[in-house]
Amino acid sequence: MITRYTRPELGDLWTDHAKLEAWRRVEVAACEEMDGPSEADLEAIRAATFTVEAVLEREKITDHDVAAFVDVLSASAGEQAGRWIHFGLTSSDVLDTALALQLQSAGQVIVPQAWTLAEALAAQARAHVQTLCVGRTHGVHAEPTTFGIKMAGYAMEAARNADRLERAFAQVATGALSGAVGTYAATSPEFERKVLARLGLNGEPVSTQVVPRDRHAELLQAIALAGAGLERFATEIRHLQRTEVREVEEPFRSGQQKGSSAMPHKRNPINTERITGLARVLRGYAQTGLENVALWHERDISHSGAERVVLPDATILLHYATHVALRIAKGMVVHPDRMAENLELTHGALFSQRLLLALVRSGLSRDDAYRIAQELAQRAWDERIALRTLVEADERCAALDVDDVFDASHYARHAAEIVGRLDDVIPA
Amino acid sequence: MITRYTRPELGDLWTDHAKLEAWRRVEVAACEEMDGPSEADLEAIRAATFTVEAVLEREKITDHDVAAFVDVLSASAGEQAGRWIHFGLTSSDVLDTALALQLQSAGQVIVPQAWTLAEALAAQARAHVQTLCVGRTHGVHAEPTTFGIKMAGYAMEAARNADRLERAFAQVATGALSGAVGTYAATSPEFERKVLARLGLNGEPVSTQVVPRDRHAELLQAIALAGAGLERFATEIRHLQRTEVREVEEPFRSGQQKGSSAMPHKRNPINTERITGLARVLRGYAQTGLENVALWHERDISHSGAERVVLPDATILLHYATHVALRIAKGMVVHPDRMAENLELTHGALFSQRLLLALVRSGLSRDDAYRIAQELAQRAWDERIALRTLVEADERCAALDVDDVFDASHYARHAAEIVGRLDDVIPA
Amino acid sequence: MITRYTRPELGDLWTDHAKLEAWRRVEVAACEEMDGPSEADLEAIRAATFTVEAVLEREKITDHDVAAFVDVLSASAGEQAGRWIHFGLTSSDVLDTALALQLQSAGQVIVPQAWTLAEALAAQARAHVQTLCVGRTHGVHAEPTTFGIKMAGYAMEAARNADRLERAFAQVATGALSGAVGTYAATSPEFERKVLARLGLNGEPVSTQVVPRDRHAELLQAIALAGAGLERFATEIRHLQRTEVREVEEPFRSGQQKGSSAMPHKRNPINTERITGLARVLRGYAQTGLENVALWHERDISHSGAERVVLPDATILLHYATHVALRIAKGMVVHPDRMAENLELTHGALFSQRLLLALVRSGLSRDDAYRIAQELAQRAWDERIALRTLVEADERCAALDVDDVFDASHYARHAAEIVGRLDDVIPA
Amino acid sequence: MITRYTRPELGDLWTDHAKLEAWRRVEVAACEEMDGPSEADLEAIRAATFTVEAVLEREKITDHDVAAFVDVLSASAGEQAGRWIHFGLTSSDVLDTALALQLQSAGQVIVPQAWTLAEALAAQARAHVQTLCVGRTHGVHAEPTTFGIKMAGYAMEAARNADRLERAFAQVATGALSGAVGTYAATSPEFERKVLARLGLNGEPVSTQVVPRDRHAELLQAIALAGAGLERFATEIRHLQRTEVREVEEPFRSGQQKGSSAMPHKRNPINTERITGLARVLRGYAQTGLENVALWHERDISHSGAERVVLPDATILLHYATHVALRIAKGMVVHPDRMAENLELTHGALFSQRLLLALVRSGLSRDDAYRIAQELAQRAWDERIALRTLVEADERCAALDVDDVFDASHYARHAAEIVGRLDDVIPA
Repeated sequence: MITRYTRPELGDLWTDHAKLEAWRRVEVAACEEMDGPSEADLEAIRAATFTVEAVLEREKITDHDVAAFVDVLSASAGEQAGRWIHFGLTSSDVLDTALALQLQSAGQVIVPQAWTLAEALAAQARAHVQTLCVGRTHGVHAEPTTFGIKMAGYAMEAARNADRLERAFAQVATGALSGAVGTYAATSPEFERKVLARLGLNGEPVSTQVVPRDRHAELLQAIALAGAGLERFATEIRHLQRTEVREVEEPFRSGQQKGSSAMPHKRNPINTERITGLARVLRGYAQTGLENVALWHERDISHSGAERVVLPDATILLHYATHVALRIAKGMVVHPDRMAENLELTHGALFSQRLLLALVRSGLSRDDAYRIAQELAQRAWDERIALRTLVEADERCAALDVDDVFDASHYARHAAEIVGRLDDVIPA
Repeated sequence: MITRYTRPELGDLWTDHAKLEAWRRVEVAACEEMDGPSEADLEAIRAATFTVEAVLEREKITDHDVAAFVDVLSASAGEQAGRWIHFGLTSSDVLDTALALQLQSAGQVIVPQAWTLAEALAAQARAHVQTLCVGRTHGVHAEPTTFGIKMAGYAMEAARNADRLERAFAQVATGALSGAVGTYAATSPEFERKVLARLGLNGEPVSTQVVPRDRHAELLQAIALAGAGLERFATEIRHLQRTEVREVEEPFRSGQQKGSSAMPHKRNPINTERITGLARVLRGYAQTGLENVALWHERDISHSGAERVVLPDATILLHYATHVALRIAKGMVVHPDRMAENLELTHGALFSQRLLLALVRSGLSRDDAYRIAQELAQRAWDERIALRTLVEADERCAALDVDDVFDASHYARHAAEIVGRLDDVIPA
Repeated sequence: MITRYTRPELGDLWTDHAKLEAWRRVEVAACEEMDGPSEADLEAIRAATFTVEAVLEREKITDHDVAAFVDVLSASAGEQAGRWIHFGLTSSDVLDTALALQLQSAGQVIVPQAWTLAEALAAQARAHVQTLCVGRTHGVHAEPTTFGIKMAGYAMEAARNADRLERAFAQVATGALSGAVGTYAATSPEFERKVLARLGLNGEPVSTQVVPRDRHAELLQAIALAGAGLERFATEIRHLQRTEVREVEEPFRSGQQKGSSAMPHKRNPINTERITGLARVLRGYAQTGLENVALWHERDISHSGAERVVLPDATILLHYATHVALRIAKGMVVHPDRMAENLELTHGALFSQRLLLALVRSGLSRDDAYRIAQELAQRAWDERIALRTLVEADERCAALDVDDVFDASHYARHAAEIVGRLDDVIPA
Repeated sequence: MITRYTRPELGDLWTDHAKLEAWRRVEVAACEEMDGPSEADLEAIRAATFTVEAVLEREKITDHDVAAFVDVLSASAGEQAGRWIHFGLTSSDVLDTALALQLQSAGQVIVPQAWTLAEALAAQARAHVQTLCVGRTHGVHAEPTTFGIKMAGYAMEAARNADRLERAFAQVATGALSGAVGTYAATSPEFERKVLARLGLNGEPVSTQVVPRDRHAELLQAIALAGAGLERFATEIRHLQRTEVREVEEPFRSGQQKGSSAMPHKRNPINTERITGLARVLRGYAQTGLENVALWHERDISHSGAERVVLPDATILLHYATHVALRIAKGMVVHPDRMAENLELTHGALFSQRLLLALVRSGLSRDDAYRIAQELAQRAWDERIALRTLVEADERCAALDVDDVFDASHYARHAAEIVGRLDDVIPA
C-alpha cells in the first residue's frame, strides 16, 4: 500500500521484517516442542537472527522463500542446532501459522478502532438526540427526524461491523503444523497443539497442508463490509455538506487549508469522498479473497501471491479509512440552524402523511385521502404557500384538528428511546 | 431475468425456443455445406421441427442437451436424412455458433438503442446550450456552467459506450465449426468458412473446441461499462431532483402516480435510482465473465452454466435500464428558473476564481491572492453578503475591474463550441 | 433465475404471489396490533384477497407497487375495513419486513441443506478414513494421505459454511415498522414489537425507514463464500476425474447418458464444472450486495431493483448448486485401486521428506540432506527407478533404516484422529 | 505495489517524483501557451524545481496536494514568474493531464511487452505445429491435437489482449485543460489544444472538470482481461505439469532451486500459480474502476484515492505477471515423448468419434452408432484393451475400414493451416 494511506500501526505489521519475525517465532516455538534438540540447541535457536537482506540474497539461490529463511536462520544457529530448525515442518506450517499471527496483530489494532468509531458516532447520536432535521428518502424531503436518530443508525451499523471484524479476525487466528498434505506424518497432533498454544492461536481441525482459505475470504469480506459501512456514513456527510444543504461539514482548518487550487471559496468534503473511493478498493480485495478459496487438491500456491498484496492492503486501507472516518465522526461541524431552515423548504409539505392519516381517521377512504393530501402538499411546495394555510382553507379538511396535524413534536417523541437502544451495544 | 425488467425485444431472443431455433439454424447450415446428404435429405432436414418440450423430455435420458436436441431433430427429419444432422460436429460447434447468432441479434437491438440514448442526450445538450446553471464539484457550488455542457458530457459518454458495445458485439459474433478440440478432424476449415458465411458470422481463427471466452468477457465488460455510464447520468438526475436543488425532475404523471405510499407530497427519482441499482448488478456479471476465461485445456464446461444466466440477464438488464434512461433523457423536466435561483445561493462566492485571477493579474502572488479571495468568498457565503459588495469595500481589491470580475457571461462563452463537438459523433 | 436452475422449494418462495402474500401477512399483522379497526374490520381484513394480476393492473396507474397492492387489498376488505390497511405504515415497513419473511423461509430450506451436505461429506470421510491416496500440492504428488482426510477437509469447510449461512440468515430475519424515516411518528416502538413478534422476526434497533443493507450484504457474502466452498469440492472432483488420474468419478448413468455428442467414449465431470461456473455467478451477486449498502440519507431505492434480481437468484442458485453437490457427495464413484496405482507413479519419490528427515537425524546439515534427497528423488522419478533401490545403493545413505524410511503407514497413522474431529461438528 | 512484484520499468513511472514531474510538465507547457508570462518568466518557470519532500511539507499546511505543489514550484520560479504557474488552471487540469502522461508511459512499456508475449507463444506454436498430443475437454481425453494448435490458441488470445491494451491505453491518453467545471472560463479551447499538442495527448471533447472515468475503467478492464488471458495460459501449464500428465514443465534450475522446503523431490509450477493468483487481484481492480465512473455532478474526488492505489498497482502487476508468463512461454520444457505416451492412455478410446462417424456413414442411425461406439470405447478404456481390437472383433463393425478409423494423421492434417493463421496477426 502506498505510504499516503499507510498508518504505522498497520504498516509495521506487514514489513518484510515483521513477516520473517513471525516465521521466526513459529520456527522457534516448533523447536521448543520438538523431540531432538538439546537445551543448548534450543538456546542457540532462540538466539539465532536473520536479516531481510540475507534472506533475499539466499532466495536468489533457492527460489523458495521459506527454504531461504530456514537456511539463513539455521546458519545463524550453527550447524549443530540449526538442523533442527524446520525439522519435520513443511513451508505451509510456517507460512500459515505466521500469517495467522500477523492477522491477529492486525485485528488487535483494527477491532478496537472499529469500536472507537462506533462510540464516536454514538456520542454524536446522544448529543443530538433532539436536534430536529429533515429526513430524506430518495434525496427528497420526507418527514422530520432528529440528527441523533440519524447518527444512531450509523453507530449501530458501525457496531455491527466491529462485531463482524472481531469474529472474522478471531476465526482467522488459526494456525496449523500438520505437515505436508496435512497428515502429521512428520509431526503429530500433540506437537501442533503445544506449538499453537505457545503462540496463542487456534488449531485448524482439518488442514490440507494449508489453513483453508475460506477463513481469509471471510476476513476480506468483513473488511469490505466495514468499508461499505464507512462509505454509507461518508455519503451522508457528503450529502449534508452540499452547498444547498450545508447541515454538516467536515472539519476544515479555515486559516490555511485550500479547498480548491482554483476556487478559493470552496470547502469540499474531500475526506468523506476519499473514504468512498477506498471502500471501492476494499470490495475488489474481497472478490480476490473469494477466488482464492478453491485451491487445487491439498493446495496450490496461487493464493499466496494474491494474499501478499491484498491482505496487507486491505487491512491497511480499512485502518486508514476508519481513521479518517473517526476524525470526521468526532470533529464534524453540525449546523442545527441550517437543519431548521431546511425543514421549512417544502412549506409544510413534509406534514403530508399526518394530513393523510388525519383524513383517513376522519372517515375518508385511503385513496381519496391520498389524493387530497397529494394535491395540497404539491401545491404548497410548488407555489410556496404554507400547507397549513391551504389545509385551513380547504373544505375537505374542515373536520381536522389542524394544530395536531402540524405538530412537529410527533417526529421526535421516540427519539430518546431509539437512541437509547445504543446503550446495549455501545455503553455511553 | 424477472419479467419486470424483461422487455420483449430482448426477452424473445433468450427463450428456450429461440436458443433451440439458433441451434437448428446452425445444424441446417452445416448440413447444407456437408458432403453426404442428398438434396432430398436436405429438404427433410430443412423441414425438420422440434419442440422445447420434446427436447427437455429427451434430455432426461441423455443428460446432454445438444445430444437430446440432435436426437429430436433427427427423428423429425426421418432416419435416412436425420443421421446427417450434427454429422462431424461436436456440441460446441453448435452451441457457440448459435450463441454468436443470439448475441448478434441482441446487439442488433442494443447497439441502436445505445445510439438513440446518445442522441436524446445530445438533443437536450443542444436545447440547453445557453441555460446557465451552477457547476458543482464535491457537491459544492464551483462555478457557473450551462445545462447544455452538462448534458453534452453525458451524450459524449453515451456515444463512447455505444461505440464500445458495437465493437464488443461485433467481435463476439464469431462462430466455430472446428470440431472436437478444434482440429477440424471431422470437418474442414473450408466447411467452417462456408457455414459461417451462410450464417453471417466471423470465424474464430484458433478455437479450442469453443470460441474463447475472452470475447464474451469483453462483451460483459462493455455492458457493465455502459451500465456505469447510465448510472452516472442517473446519479446526476437524482442529485438535481433533491428537494434543495430541484433543477430537474424525472417525468412524473402528476394525476395518478403515487410517489410514496405514506407521504403524498413526494415525487421521487425512482427511475434513476433503479438504473443505479441495476448498474451494480451488471458489474457483477462482468466479474463472472472474467472468471469464465480460464477454461481448462481445450475447454471445460464451467462457463456454460454461468453464461446461461449472465448473458441473457446482462443483455436484458442493460436494454431495460437504457430504455428507462431514454425515457428520462427525453422527458425530464428542466427548471431553468430553479437553476438561476441556485446560482445565487453562495452570494457570489462562485466568482472566487475570477477574483483570484484578477488579483494575480493585478500583481499579487498567487498565495496572497488566494488568501484574500478565500477570506472574502467565505465571508460572503457564511454571512450572506454579496461578494461583490465585499470586494468593492475592500482596499486590497481597489485596482480591480469589478464589473469584469462578476461578469457571468464568461462561463458560457465557449458553450456553443463545446456542445458543437457533439456534431462529429452524434449528428444533429 | 432460469427454470433449469430453479428447484421448486426455492422457486416457490420468490414468485410474485409469494411476495404479495408476505406483504399481506405484514399488513394483516399490523392491523391486528393497530388502534382503530374493530373486530369486524379485522375479520374483513383477514379475509381480504388479492391477485397478482389485479395488483399489476393497479400499478400501471400508481406507478408504485405497494400503493397498488394496498389499493387492491383495501378494496377487497371493503371501504370501512380497508382504510385501516397500511394505516400509519410506509412502504418500507411492509417491503422490508416481508422480505425478511421471505429470506427467513429461504434460510429454512438452505441451512438444513447445507448441513446435509456437510453430513454427506463427513460420511465419505468416515468411510474412507484409511483409504490411501496421494496428496498433491501444486498438482504434483507430494506425500500419501487418505481419501478420508481429504473428504474431512471438505466436510469441515461445508460445516463452516453451513454455520455462516445460519448466522447470516438469522441476522437478516429482521423487520421494521418504524414508519417514514424511522421515527415511529405514525406508529410506535411498542406496535412494532408486537407486530414483529406475531411474525417471528427480530426488530431493527435503528432503522432508517429501511432495514440497513449491510444485513443483506452479509447474507450475499455468506452465499458467495458457501459457493466458493462448493467450488473447491467440485474442483477436487474435476481433478480426480481427469483421464490421467481417474481416482473418483461423478455418478454417471452408463446405459443412456451421453457424455459428448461427438465423442462417445467420454464421461465428463459436467456437474462439478457446472457448480464451478455457478460459484462465479454467486460472487457477482455478493459484489452487488456490497454496493447496495451506501444508500442515500434515510434511504433511496436503488437497492430495490438490484435486490429483486440478486436475492432470489443468489438463494435459488446456491440451493441448486448445493443440490448438485449433494448428489455427487453421496454418489461419487471412488476407485481405491486407481489411488493405489497412482501412489506408485513417482517410483517412491513421494518418500523424499522421510529420506530428508532421516538424513538430518543421521547428522547431516539440512541443506546437505536436502541436496541428496532431491538428487535421488528426481532421479527415481525421471529414470523410473525405485527410490528405495537408489537409496540402498547410495553410500551417503548407508546409515539409514531403509525399511522405516519407506514405511507408508506413517502417513495414515493420524487419519482416524483427524477424521474423528468431525464428530464435534457433524455427529456421525 | 510491493517491491517483489514491481519491476523498475513500471515502478519508476509511479513514484511520487514521477507524478510531480508529470505535473511539472503540464504546468510548464501551460505557461508556454499562456498569455501573460514574459520570455524571462518562462525561463524561470522552465528552470523551476521541486522536491517531493518540500511538496509534502507544504501539503501539511494546504491539505491540498496540487496547491502545495504550485506553491513550491512558484516559489522556485521566483515571485514574478511564479505567479503564472497554474494561472487559470484548476487542479484537475493538471492532475488528469499528468495522469494521462503517466498512463501513456505505462502503455509504452506494457503494450510492446504484450506483443512480445504473443510472439513467444506464436514461436512455440510454430515449433510444435506437428507435435501430437491429446486434446482434453473437461479434463478428460477427447481427441488428439497438436501442441502447436494449443499454443496458437494462446498466442491468438495474447494478440487480442495486446490489441485491447493498445486501444485502451490510446483512449486514456487524453488530457483536458478546460478549467473549473469544464467551461474554459479562465482558459480557452485553443489554449487547451496547444498545450495538449505540446504534450502529445488527445483532448477530451467534453470534460466535466475531469477526464471522464469511463476511460480509466476501460483501461482497468483491458488489464483484467489481459490478466485472465495470462491465467488461461498459466492454467494450461499447471495442468500439463501435473505428476500424472507431465507433458510440459516450467523452467526449473535443477542444481540449486528448492521446490519444497519439506519434499525435496518436488518441481512445482509455482510461477504459473502466481500468475493465476495475480489475475484475481487484477479483476478486483477492474471492479473498482467501474465504480469510479459515476462521480457526482462535475466531479467529486472519490475516484482519486482509489486510483492512487489501483492504477499503479494494476499496471505494475500486469507488467510483472506478463514478465513471468513471458519467461515461461520462452523457456518451458516440452516433453513430446510424454505427450505420445499419454495418447495411449485410453487404449484408443480417443478414436470414438471417428468410429461413430464411420458407423453412421455405413448406414446406422446416429443414436445406434453412438451406443455402439460408446460401449466399445468405454470397454477399451475400462478394461485396457485396444479399441481397435474390440472393433475388429465386433460384427456390427464388420463393414468398416478399420485402418482409416484408427489413422491418427487426420487430427494433425489442418494443423499447419491453423497455426498459419497466426501470420496475419503475429508475423513470424
